This record gives sequence, C-alpha cells and structure tokens, in this order.
Amino acid sequence: MKWSRRHVLETNDWSRDEIEAVLETTGAMVEILKRPVRKAPPLRGKTVILFFAESSTRTRVSFELAAKALSADVTNITASGSSVEKGETLYDTVRTLQALGGDIVVMRHASSGAPYFVAERTDAAVINAGDGWHAHPTQGLLDAYTLREALGDLQGKRIVIVGDVLHSRVARSDINALTPLGATITLSGPPTLMPSAWRDGALPPCVTYEPDIERALDSADAAITLRLQKERQEGGLLPSLRAYTRVWGVTEKRVALMRPNAPVMHPGPMNEGIEIDASVAHGSRSLVETQVTNGVAVRMALLYLLTGTSSLEAA
Amino acid sequence: MKWSRRHVLETNDWSRDEIEAVLETTGAMVEILKRPVRKAPPLRGKTVILFFAESSTRTRVSFELAAKALSADVTNITASGSSVEKGETLYDTVRTLQALGGDIVVMRHASSGAPYFVAERTDAAVINAGDGWHAHPTQGLLDAYTLREALGDLQGKRIVIVGDVLHSRVARSDINALTPLGATITLSGPPTLMPSAWRDGALPPCVTYEPDIERALDSADAAITLRLQKERQEGGLLPSLRAYTRVWGVTEKRVALMRPNAPVMHPGPMNEGIEIDASVAHGSRSLVETQVTNGVAVRMALLYLLTGTSSLEAA
Amino acid sequence: MKWSRRHVLETNDWSRDEIEAVLETTGAMVEILKRPVRKAPPLRGKTVILFFAESSTRTRVSFELAAKALSADVTNITASGSSVEKGETLYDTVRTLQALGGDIVVMRHASSGAPYFVAERTDAAVINAGDGWHAHPTQGLLDAYTLREALGDLQGKRIVIVGDVLHSRVARSDINALTPLGATITLSGPPTLMPSAWRDGALPPCVTYEPDIERALDSADAAITLRLQKERQEGGLLPSLRAYTRVWGVTEKRVALMRPNAPVMHPGPMNEGIEIDASVAHGSRSLVETQVTNGVAVRMALLYLLTGTSSLEAA
Repeated sequence: MKWSRRHVLETNDWSRDEIEAVLETTGAMVEILKRPVRKAPPLRGKTVILFFAESSTRTRVSFELAAKALSADVTNITASGSSVEKGETLYDTVRTLQALGGDIVVMRHASSGAPYFVAERTDAAVINAGDGWHAHPTQGLLDAYTLREALGDLQGKRIVIVGDVLHSRVARSDINALTPLGATITLSGPPTLMPSAWRDGALPPCVTYEPDIERALDSADAAITLRLQKERQEGGLLPSLRAYTRVWGVTEKRVALMRPNAPVMHPGPMNEGIEIDASVAHGSRSLVETQVTNGVAVRMALLYLLTGTSSLEAA
Repeated sequence: MKWSRRHVLETNDWSRDEIEAVLETTGAMVEILKRPVRKAPPLRGKTVILFFAESSTRTRVSFELAAKALSADVTNITASGSSVEKGETLYDTVRTLQALGGDIVVMRHASSGAPYFVAERTDAAVINAGDGWHAHPTQGLLDAYTLREALGDLQGKRIVIVGDVLHSRVARSDINALTPLGATITLSGPPTLMPSAWRDGALPPCVTYEPDIERALDSADAAITLRLQKERQEGGLLPSLRAYTRVWGVTEKRVALMRPNAPVMHPGPMNEGIEIDASVAHGSRSLVETQVTNGVAVRMALLYLLTGTSSLEAA
Repeated sequence: MKWSRRHVLETNDWSRDEIEAVLETTGAMVEILKRPVRKAPPLRGKTVILFFAESSTRTRVSFELAAKALSADVTNITASGSSVEKGETLYDTVRTLQALGGDIVVMRHASSGAPYFVAERTDAAVINAGDGWHAHPTQGLLDAYTLREALGDLQGKRIVIVGDVLHSRVARSDINALTPLGATITLSGPPTLMPSAWRDGALPPCVTYEPDIERALDSADAAITLRLQKERQEGGLLPSLRAYTRVWGVTEKRVALMRPNAPVMHPGPMNEGIEIDASVAHGSRSLVETQVTNGVAVRMALLYLLTGTSSLEAA
C-alpha cells in the first residue's frame, strides 16, 4: 500500500493495512540495526525536533537514535529552560519549531490532545510520543511488532493488560494497535483504576474486563504489565502499594497460569517488586528488552514513512 | 569584500559593507534551506560549542540547526550542572572550551560584556548570542535581512521599535544593524523603560523618541515590538501590565496607522495580549515566523564567514 | 600488541603494554585533531551513550567531542528527568541502554563500583568516567600522556600529587596509570585528607606520603594539584580554606622548589586562590589546557580500541 498519513497521533482510526505497513517497514529497520554500520541515508538533510514537555528518557533516546540512524539532524527541546516556561503559548512554540525548519516534530505533552492541536497548525509532520492519559501510539505499534514476532499471526490471540488502565496511555494505544490485527484484549486491575464506563461493561470491541488477575491470565497468550504510578496511592485510588502487589502483582506463580512460554511485557520503567516481580521481569518469558530494541526500529519506520523518502541503502 | 572579522560581538562598529556581506551570504543560505536536502559541507570537522549560561530555546536551537546544516559537530553547555556552578571562573571555562577544540563558541550570558572578555582570551571565534541588556547582534542582523526582504532598500525607511527599550539588547542591536543601511528608528514606550539619556534627547544618530505610540506608528514603514519582561511591573517601572497594554500595546487599530501592509515583527517569545495582540501576532502583516526562519540562515552565514571556509556545494 | 580489553573500568590491573598501547593510539588521535578537518570514520554507525548520573561539563563534553570526531552517533542521558528519577534500578537502566543499541556506554556515577556492576551485566563496552571516590581512569591516562609528552620517559621521574587524596578518584587513577610507566609518586596534603592506611605507612608500591609540601616538591619532576571540594571544610576535615591554602596551596614560591621547568597540572575545574594560585594555574609551567586537549585524544583512543575497528583515514 501507499503511505498517506501525515501524522502519527493515535492509531484508533488506522486500517489494518496501515498498521501492517508500519510493521513490515519495522522489519526492514530491524535488519538495518543488525548491520555492523547501523546507518542509512533517507533522512539526510532533514530535521527532527524532539519536543518533550514532559520528561522521559527511554522514549526520547529511542526517537533520537532512530532519527540519527536514518541520518537526520536532531535537536532536543525540553520544557524547563524553554520558552514554554517564559509563558509562550503552545501555538507559538509550534509555529516557531516549524519556522526553524523542523520536518518532523516528535512531542510528549502532559495534556491529552496536545499533538492534535499542534498537527492542525503546522506543516511539519507530528508524532505523538505520549499525551497525558490519552495515547502513546509508537508504544502500541512496538508492542504489536514484538507480539507478532513472538506469537506469529495475532488473529484469535488473547492478550492480558494488567494494572492501572485508567491513567495508561499505553493501554489505550495497545488496544488500538492490537485489535485490528485480530487479537482480543482482557483488562485486569483494580476497579478504581479502570475507566468507569469500561468497568460498567461499555467496553471497546474485542476488549473485556476481568478483575480477577488469575482468571484473566488463565490460558492467555501474552501479558502486558502497566507501570504503576506510585502517586496513585496518595490520591486514594489504592489502599496501599503492598495490597496492590498482593492482589495484582505479576508473579511467577500467576504467569505460570498462561499458555506455555506465553511472553510478559512492560513498557518500562518498571517498579520491580510492585507491579512485576524481578524474577518475571528478567525471566525467560520477559520481552522487556526486546520491546526497547523494537522501539527504535518502529520509530525509524515511522520517521521513514512520514518523510516519504525512498532509499534505505547504506549511506 | 573580503571578510576579516574574527568575532561577532556587536555590530555597532561594523561598516555598511560588512553588514551587506552578511545579508548577501544569508541569501545564499536561504537557498540552501529551500533544498530538499538541507545540508552543506563547509563546517565538516569543525566544532561549534553552544555555551548558554542563560536559558534560551529559540536562539540555541537556531544556532544548533544552523551549525548542523553546515555539517559542524555541535555540543551544548548550559550553566546548570556545569563547572560554572562549581565556582570555575569564566576565564577558565573559556580556556577549557578552546582546549577542547571549539572552533566557534556561541555564548549567551547574563553579564553585559562577557563575550568581549571571552573573545580577548581565546583563539576560538566568539559569537554573542545575547549578553545582559547589551547586545544580541544576530537578532539585529536577522531583523535587517527580514526587513530588507519585505521593504527593499532601507534607505529613508522609518522603523518603529515599541516597548521596554531600557532592558532590551534587541533594540540596541536593531539600531546598530539598521541605521547603517539607511533606516531611521523611532523608539516608543514608557519613559521609565527608556534609557535616561535617550529619554532626555541624547539619542544615537538617526534615532528619535516619541512616547505617543500612535504618533510614532503614523506612516511608519515597519514596527518591531519588544518582549515585555513581566517582572518589570514588580520592579515598580510599570503601574500594571494592563495599563501598559492599554497605552503601548500593539493592536490592530494602531497597526492600521502605519503605511499600507507595513510589517510587524517581534523577536519572540511573545506575551500575546500584553505587548502585542494575538490578531496582530498572527495577522497578515506579521513577519514573526519569517524572522525565525531567517534567523537560522543568518546564523549559518556568520558561522560560514567566521570559519573562512570556501565551498557551499551540497555534501 | 593486540587490544583485548572489553571495558575501561580502572587501570589498576593493566599491564604496562596496555597503557603504552593507549598512549601510542592517543598520539595518532592528536594528529587527527591537528588536521583542518577533524573527523575520522571508524565509529560511523556506532552509538555512544553518555550516561552521567553525576553532573559534569568538561568530561562529558570531552567524550562527546571525541565520539563525534570518530563519526559515532552520540546521545546524552543525565540523572535528572531520567527514569533513574522514576525509581528504575541501575540494572534496568543499563539493560535498556544496551537494548537501545548502545555500543559503548560512558558512565559517571556517585557510587564507587557502579561501572563494574554495569559491565558485568551488559554486552556494551563500558567506560568509567568517574565513580565516587574510586577511579577516573581516563584522567589517569590523559595525565600519563601529558607527562610523557612533557618529560619523556617516566622511568625514575618523581611526580607529586597535592591535596585531598582521600576523596580523589583522580589521585588513585593517576597512581595506577603512572607507576607502571616507572614513575614514583609523592603524595602531600593534610593527614585528615589522606586514606588512613596510607597515612600510617601502608602505601601502594612506588608511592610515599610527605605531609610537608615543600619537602615533597623539592626537586620533583612534576606536580598534580587536586581540586579541593569546598564542602570538606563543613565536614570538619579542614580547619578553614584559608588555613589549607596557607599550608598546602600550590604557589609560585613552592613551585620554584621543583626541578627547572617542572610542569604543574590540575584536573579542573580549579578553585584559583585556594588549592592553586592563579599565577601558577596560568603560568609558563601550567599544562592545564594541554591536559584538556589531550583528554579528547585519549578518549578517542579508548573509543577506537574498544570498538575494534580498523581504519583511521579521514572520512
């Protein structure tokens, strides 16, 4: 198929073909990353601006290395010390980034929807690297790529997402990337950390909610553990971290309920001993590091598709 | 003409020919920035150190992208977390930057005159990216380039600079870059925010002060709005921001007093609704984004001229 | 000799041949840095991650420019704003850096031994850029290179290290790099700032302790002044900075006790007027800037040796 999207804001309205195109291109990027010289020329003379108004390490570095592997010029803008702090509007910041020559703006922002606002007001391509509780589409796509490498065709596969779904842009983007590929999703976690409509049964297609983690994991094909923001406890949504761990922690014993060798994933950074046991996080089923590696490749694929350039040959 | 300056500290003692040489080279850089591959080789294997002891986004990124477009290696040094914090003298910091191999040091510093101190003590070329209230020469040059593109020859053109002239290095550098090209400058703004000698009539050549903004703008060829530092109010120099806006805000109604289509500029970041109305900032007369784009080109031109390299062909 | 080390953690167990190999390669890098185009291709398509969990300017920039001069892709990770702050374990951070594709991880960490922990758990090459009070091997190697350029063969040369040896990773790494080359070391400084075993006579081979700085410097071949952390005074280890300066400050008069033209060094940043007089720091014997320049070259040499690449020809 011919790629026609200008932005990557969220995959909720993407066709299966579009998601497949990203995964296929990701495969080509994985090959480039295996070469002794991990460098290809398609973004030479293009500028990628990493605009992270919320702090992040792994996502920011992942995009930076992806852009550099494709020979782009990259610059970092963070909220602290930036004109954002000086009271400039988001609109003006974005117009400035475009005027500076940014071909692609990768942005993370605390406000859900901020990348949509930006995308409507700039000629640059916009990639959402996480907006509030809303979406984190590159995480959804890298999880889809990782699961397909591990499980093959996802048609009919059942993926469990465990934890604080309410505040998780990862959960939403995983659903949006995985269900078009034929997977079904079982959500599990405290009712207080589940969107109220979903808890009450008004769930998206192919998604169910099972508060009992052991029933959820029983015979599942894979599990994605969400990061628990420790401040949720202070907000009164959790009795205690210890209670959370006891009831919803992803332990070896619970993981054993899944299909043989069913993989376990986590978007990172992990709170080991809280939402996931260290032995699971680093055990034979863990795909956590594979996710990180695939993250670079999926971001290379998106940067490549958005600039509409052609050659992937070594520079 | 043959370029002979080693540093860019302020344009107050530059000849018209020197300013013209920068503007002409800027034109060549604008052409490079229009290419699909925005990359030229003249600074390959040269090192540009961005030493920003005061925070900045747009100026720092503008220099960074300019240097990368010319294939330089670039590194960022900020005050926080640097040896400046550890009590090192500015002299030692600068000797270190040179010893590290910096060919060009771009510096922003809270102390007026700091770049002069540095330039006398290093073999590296020094570009002043803003020092205290003193000067911001690359802003002056980019404003000159932008105005000449908009108005043609500046001989006899009258440019109004509105706002807090007292604390504005932009105002000083605009005067120094524009008057040698034949423009006259009308300053307008609160008497408390005007240098006392200027308020009292001892003005530089080709510069006048007109406290009434409407008389100042009447039939003007262009207006440059200065950023109002909100802390001026606390310092007792302003009765209130609201009073400032009422008396000196750049509004649509006031802009209409200028010549037809006379442009409006602002160095950014803007306080919309305070020193400039949003409708003016984003209206048809606004050159704010053009200034940002030209800023990259003028910085490329200066980096290129200072390194004395020759070829501008695509790498 | 054929290079076989995977990591640079500390030189305490390096053979003289290994140290010689680094110094010889450094010489080749110094030549590259003298070229008009300071750029060579050996690390093209390789990724160097600068992971500085403690702040630093000169060491971080030195590694960054070294990596870029060899055409590597470089990314910076600092502790603030990173997943380290979000409670991730060092183990997970390191596994992530490797999964992101880091070929070489350059790390500075407040905990002595952290780079050893990391090196055992990653396939990436690890370079220790300073860990707690323990070691700073690249400083030791650059000091060895600088002294050999200044003095020739170090066999039988006597080098004085003055100051807070107790808390100094530089002192330890200097000893480890210099004594295998045949130098002897005289330590001088307050007994309260000397490791207690060393103060009591249980010193490493070829190292002696002489509390009287004038006796220590008498006929010495070179002096290395250590940075005095001003907080030592608050910790009760020093009566006052003024008393320290009076008794152990490196002054012109004291420097004159050394052999004619014997050089003075300092790892920087310097507290001028405290541990070293400004006139010495910037006098004819000072090698402080040469150390900085050689620091880039020695780091290039190590990056080059660790990646096992071959060609040093200009790209």
